[in-house]
Amino acid sequence: MALSTELTELLGVRHPIVQAPMGGSAGGALAAAVSRAGGLGLLGGGYGDRAWLERELPIVAAGTGQPWGVGFLTWAIDAGAVERALAFGPAAVMLSFGDPGPFADRIRRSGAVLMVQVTDADEAGRAVEVGADVIVAQGTESGGHGARHGRSTLPFVPLVVDLVAPVPVLAAGGIADGRGVAAALALGAAGALIGTRFQATAEALVDPSVSKAIVEGRGQDTERSGVLDIVRGSGWPTEKYTARALGHPSLDRWRGREAELADDDRARQDYREDVARGAIPSLPVWAGEAVDLITDLPSAADLVTALAAQAEDALDRAGRRQRPDSRPPAHG
Amino acid sequence: MALSTELTELLGVRHPIVQAPMGGSAGGALAAAVSRAGGLGLLGGGYGDRAWLERELPIVAAGTGQPWGVGFLTWAIDAGAVERALAFGPAAVMLSFGDPGPFADRIRRSGAVLMVQVTDADEAGRAVEVGADVIVAQGTESGGHGARHGRSTLPFVPLVVDLVAPVPVLAAGGIADGRGVAAALALGAAGALIGTRFQATAEALVDPSVSKAIVEGRGQDTERSGVLDIVRGSGWPTEKYTARALGHPSLDRWRGREAELADDDRARQDYREDVARGAIPSLPVWAGEAVDLITDLPSAADLVTALAAQAEDALDRAGRRQRPDSRPPAHG
Repeated sequence: MALSTELTELLGVRHPIVQAPMGGSAGGALAAAVSRAGGLGLLGGGYGDRAWLERELPIVAAGTGQPWGVGFLTWAIDAGAVERALAFGPAAVMLSFGDPGPFADRIRRSGAVLMVQVTDADEAGRAVEVGADVIVAQGTESGGHGARHGRSTLPFVPLVVDLVAPVPVLAAGGIADGRGVAAALALGAAGALIGTRFQATAEALVDPSVSKAIVEGRGQDTERSGVLDIVRGSGWPTEKYTARALGHPSLDRWRGREAELADDDRARQDYREDVARGAIPSLPVWAGEAVDLITDLPSAADLVTALAAQAEDALDRAGRRQRPDSRPPAHG
Repeated sequence: MALSTELTELLGVRHPIVQAPMGGSAGGALAAAVSRAGGLGLLGGGYGDRAWLERELPIVAAGTGQPWGVGFLTWAIDAGAVERALAFGPAAVMLSFGDPGPFADRIRRSGAVLMVQVTDADEAGRAVEVGADVIVAQGTESGGHGARHGRSTLPFVPLVVDLVAPVPVLAAGGIADGRGVAAALALGAAGALIGTRFQATAEALVDPSVSKAIVEGRGQDTERSGVLDIVRGSGWPTEKYTARALGHPSLDRWRGREAELADDDRARQDYREDVARGAIPSLPVWAGEAVDLITDLPSAADLVTALAAQAEDALDRAGRRQRPDSRPPAHG
């Protein structure tokens, strides 16, 4: 019997498990598979690239009779991207990194659940102000982008839960198995938003070298930095956001010298040339600290089912009570 | 009915709640009160100061008929400190920060449970090697000292649980209420080790200004740094360990310039003079990120009871199942 939370009730999904809208790699096939399996799959709309959305939105919309959603980078999109997504009837739209104000009313008027990702208490307050239906509290152990001066998920989630009640909260960052899902619920969250773990599934739109790196990677080898955005010229506001990735030559070369790198046009050109001639991969391997817990490459459906079963088991085990007659004598 | 874990079974304590051995401030009265209330109180033996131990050990040993323990900084102590503690019959001895090898056998031979705190996978392996009975996995959100390049508790605990099984693991760092205790158990830990929350209790050996700062402090105002150890001349190996504290004038002055500070004898003298004339407090206010969740100043006994009850409630709530007939129609 599946776990019940405000999220499963609000969205009518079977499991309190949300697949993060990883820009570019969370395509229609992944989101649809997650939703079919009873989680909430979110298309990784990222910067709102029109061609990508027009290719992937029909896939997810046609691929599941269950609720699905789409996520965007708030600082990067315009209203057109939101409109293109809403035209396909998502059950949820998630906005991350930037002021959700300009898009909030339009999303809510469409009937979609508005999800807003936050990285500190002020952002949580702003999310409530704009009418977020679900707030995602993201910790600094998450893979890919997040706050430069981030909070850790374990203490951050209950803070946000208390700040925004009764708005349901999802925990994000550092969760890659059912124990993490269970911990999220124990902290008072209504579910877990999971990224890196879904990069290593059959349906993720990633190069096989990426899923291999994630399966083999260790959390201690991940690093949060602005270097990879600066050297790529990605446009990310790196004074506020960094990204966690597995080891990369540019990190070794520029660690601790972001300001210098920002002024070095030649370094960015070298990076582009290195990518063009295949000397370095076209994208960094974004990965969270929980990458240690990822050791296989399942289908997204099997993963959702396993996460849900592990979470139930973890909660049953954790909630085990002492039998009054079973206590050993006090030690010492 | 209390929660049952490998820790409650191993030590014969009522609750899977361990009060961290905060050097100097976790005195005999605090440790005894925690143990009397059904947790495991650990005396903060710190650097092994002889006068402090001779004053506080009798207080905890006489103050509870329940299991209690003592913690030391491994890099700072000699065998004499351990002997002095063992003479009072602790149920557990915890070693943190440094190679536990030189003390492990002696502690285990005494019959005390050997607890070893670790901050990365290599240290976890070493703890198993020396025969640790309990391993404490400490995340970077913890207050006071920890690894300079630390891991966040939420993803680190399940990694350690898997690495060291079947040795029981405690989660440390970022836990200040019963939801955090519940999350620790959900992650597979056998209990939670809690520090900052116990600094704000009636029994902690801290200046009232410290407990006030903790009750009022915010997690976003805590900072992990080596500056306060370097400026104090504390002897901590700051290349490996830093400490998380609330705001401090020395942090503002020396942030990002630790190497320069280390070479500046005058700065250390100024610090001592500032302390002597009362311009700055004699100790930094060590505090973890979960300080947001601390808003009162209870007795240690009331705190243990509340943490245990909250943890049970959190697990019961998190484990709630869907009734088959109660699912709303799918949205969208």
